[in-house]
Amino acid sequence: MLPYKTLLRIDKSSRQAVYLQIAGQFIGLIQDGLIQPGTYLPGSRVLAELLDLHRKTVIAAYDELQAQDWITAIPRKGMMVSENLPEIKPRSYNNGLHAYAEGPQFPIYEAPTLPVLRSNQPSKLVINDGFPDARLAPLDEWARECRSIIQRPAYHKYLAFGPAEGNMRLRKEMLKYLADTRGLNIREENVMITRGAQMSIYLAAAMIIQKGDHIIVGSPNYFYADLAFEQLGAHIIRVPVDEDGIDTDMVEQLCRTKKIKMLYIISHHHHPTTVTLSAERRMKLLEIIRKHKLAVIEDDYDFDFHYSAAPIVPLASADHGGNVIYVGSFTKSLGLSLRIGFMIAPEKFIRKTAALRRLMDLGGDNLVEEALAGMLENGTITRHLKKANKLYWERRDLAGELLIRHLPDEVSFRLPQGGMAIWLQFAKHLKLPVVADKAAELGLSMTYGYHYAYKSKPHNGMRFGFASLNNRELVSVVQLLAKAVKS
Amino acid sequence: MLPYKTLLRIDKSSRQAVYLQIAGQFIGLIQDGLIQPGTYLPGSRVLAELLDLHRKTVIAAYDELQAQDWITAIPRKGMMVSENLPEIKPRSYNNGLHAYAEGPQFPIYEAPTLPVLRSNQPSKLVINDGFPDARLAPLDEWARECRSIIQRPAYHKYLAFGPAEGNMRLRKEMLKYLADTRGLNIREENVMITRGAQMSIYLAAAMIIQKGDHIIVGSPNYFYADLAFEQLGAHIIRVPVDEDGIDTDMVEQLCRTKKIKMLYIISHHHHPTTVTLSAERRMKLLEIIRKHKLAVIEDDYDFDFHYSAAPIVPLASADHGGNVIYVGSFTKSLGLSLRIGFMIAPEKFIRKTAALRRLMDLGGDNLVEEALAGMLENGTITRHLKKANKLYWERRDLAGELLIRHLPDEVSFRLPQGGMAIWLQFAKHLKLPVVADKAAELGLSMTYGYHYAYKSKPHNGMRFGFASLNNRELVSVVQLLAKAVKS
Repeated sequence: MLPYKTLLRIDKSSRQAVYLQIAGQFIGLIQDGLIQPGTYLPGSRVLAELLDLHRKTVIAAYDELQAQDWITAIPRKGMMVSENLPEIKPRSYNNGLHAYAEGPQFPIYEAPTLPVLRSNQPSKLVINDGFPDARLAPLDEWARECRSIIQRPAYHKYLAFGPAEGNMRLRKEMLKYLADTRGLNIREENVMITRGAQMSIYLAAAMIIQKGDHIIVGSPNYFYADLAFEQLGAHIIRVPVDEDGIDTDMVEQLCRTKKIKMLYIISHHHHPTTVTLSAERRMKLLEIIRKHKLAVIEDDYDFDFHYSAAPIVPLASADHGGNVIYVGSFTKSLGLSLRIGFMIAPEKFIRKTAALRRLMDLGGDNLVEEALAGMLENGTITRHLKKANKLYWERRDLAGELLIRHLPDEVSFRLPQGGMAIWLQFAKHLKLPVVADKAAELGLSMTYGYHYAYKSKPHNGMRFGFASLNNRELVSVVQLLAKAVKS
Repeated sequence: MLPYKTLLRIDKSSRQAVYLQIAGQFIGLIQDGLIQPGTYLPGSRVLAELLDLHRKTVIAAYDELQAQDWITAIPRKGMMVSENLPEIKPRSYNNGLHAYAEGPQFPIYEAPTLPVLRSNQPSKLVINDGFPDARLAPLDEWARECRSIIQRPAYHKYLAFGPAEGNMRLRKEMLKYLADTRGLNIREENVMITRGAQMSIYLAAAMIIQKGDHIIVGSPNYFYADLAFEQLGAHIIRVPVDEDGIDTDMVEQLCRTKKIKMLYIISHHHHPTTVTLSAERRMKLLEIIRKHKLAVIEDDYDFDFHYSAAPIVPLASADHGGNVIYVGSFTKSLGLSLRIGFMIAPEKFIRKTAALRRLMDLGGDNLVEEALAGMLENGTITRHLKKANKLYWERRDLAGELLIRHLPDEVSFRLPQGGMAIWLQFAKHLKLPVVADKAAELGLSMTYGYHYAYKSKPHNGMRFGFASLNNRELVSVVQLLAKAVKS
């Protein structure tokens, strides 16, 4: 017999009747598997003596258990725990709380995190970091594509687990897309599909960085890349970014004087400043990469969104000895609620990265990836990008005009060649967090901007995401911003 | 002027005409951004002298570039690189290869990997590790749900980036589902949605394990968990698993004598052996966890698939001081081509894990998660599980009968209480890799089995995944297996 005297704890001061306490605790023991189906409970007389209770109380508890189907009365043998237990109901614990109300009792790792981004006040209007307009995303076409895949006979034969490198049809479609848009001439072995640009960055960095390695990033730099490198144990050296992009002379100087393991670069519409690397610096950088066999992560998150000027092809499309790991994403075309990114690299790098990805994530959603392949093949993505580029170009220009009209002395900026945000510098006498708090009171949510200067020189600037706001919203947002600035 | 003499390299022995070589190299320089739109090319006479060519050759090259719209003849000024460059075309490199044909030239990390799994011979029939039947997956319902979400007015307002913890509606729906199926009484702060059980395992382990920490796993153990812990730098101690699950006496002994940081356990249908932890050992384990404040990852990947016996609720549903991090998945209900998993833990653990997940993956697919929430709410998942359980139960029994009938002396096994695989031990005189090679010749793909003994005692066994095979397929598979064994 189980040690029922220890297991069943009666609290006579409780407002719950004793027989219900007993019944509840038996249910817990059965649910926990301590009392198994087919087991006989002690006779009511025995248990009553053991617990120092009146026998009637125990009988009432057993009646309750029987009524709930937990136990069955077997003639001449006693009360048996039912073979077919009733549906499982959540239990409460002695402390009246749930299983995860406390703990854990062991220490937990702390990943690096960002400072607080913005006020929590709920707002109708938001200035974001540079997101697309989800209203434009071709999600109807995506749902149709999924449907048509599911209805193909025997689709399940090829559509269960995909390889860690991603859906093969998508990888093949990527070749044409990358050649047409970026002049990138590769094979499918050079493509890995990931859950988004961030996973591509993390995986690539994990393949390159060993704890204590020196790496170079821009100052300022994309904050989630910074955090990932820090988490991987990199020693980060920050090289200034000016209007022509990262200072390549300083990069060269550093490569000459110390062992630099990696460079992270955003060559088009740098995050956060939106500048694009000049052709001269691009040439210089390719020379440095080849000479020093420097590992490079080129994050080209916004390449597909270009307006006034035709984009220069990425570093990845030039002659770099296979040293540039190229990172991009379809997430912004898919309206953010579906996240797919990619990594382009030498075959050996892709193969070894797949081994790491398998441990973190096995592989992607084969159905979602297959649907994207279909949308690349039938031209949906190209059509979407054309439409979005036209609209975002107009919105960029309108945002620029509105900012000049309403905040002529309060902010300064340069219109970016592409992307989804304007890098807005506030005049010295205006403190961005103060402006943001005032804006929040007026119903406009905007950033405090701390994270744009994550561990780099503080600046009084923020990204003004214009792409997600239609003309009417842009007018309202800039008017509210002007009001916040001037109040 | 650019150093054209250096930049343009003419190979007179090439089969390509010299003027085409020059044109092609100019296109490369323009694509690379070294020559920018609006720039004037050198006069044909100047370039001819510089390159030591006949002037007519240069003129032919410029004509070609003009025909392709790369340059424009400006009267009295010369050849200007076009402002509107023609569509970008992929370029080839001097070596005739593509940008990623070689390299990288820097060292790359090696993640731990499995030994080769099976023969590469293409086969019509496959014995898998224990996958569901994708033909049953409610993907039509899923596509319908996606469609209805997309058609809701203003869905984009709440459906862009989700939080790193996962879609809030899904987290709320999970509470009811976990309570109904597992008796787990928690709050939404205790739930994190991930990209699958593997990501949950990796993240949880990364929060607990520091390089060199001693952890306990079963022997044998689920191979991808093993690899993940190894990759994170754990020192792995293997404790035997017998027919009652992991040897808890040895676990206790180890906890008493050295600092054990973590235990990884699969309490239902252990992978690979399919045994379920006995009630006594479960009780013992809970005692050890509370006493030693031991961190536990409970991987309950197959809980939803139970046949002959009602499942005992997981460790997570008992009183464990918040020390059991509970991992599960919907991937098997969704037919593998959509991968969603979850982690249940104390709020503090979830919050800190979200910070790490953000660096690796920002967050999940909000649309896919929202659709799953809808399928939990409208009962699709419950209906699917009922239907699948009935069918898999029949298939388990049929597989068992067939194996006994056709391979009475060659294999031994115990039918598992649930899950999707039978753990098949081959008689000593039969070497599994030999059998697998023979089977491959007969058109049946099956594992070599090496990975089931990844760094643990070798055994001549494999998982026989029965759930994905219908009755006809089961008969064929067992007949082929018998033929392979006896040939």
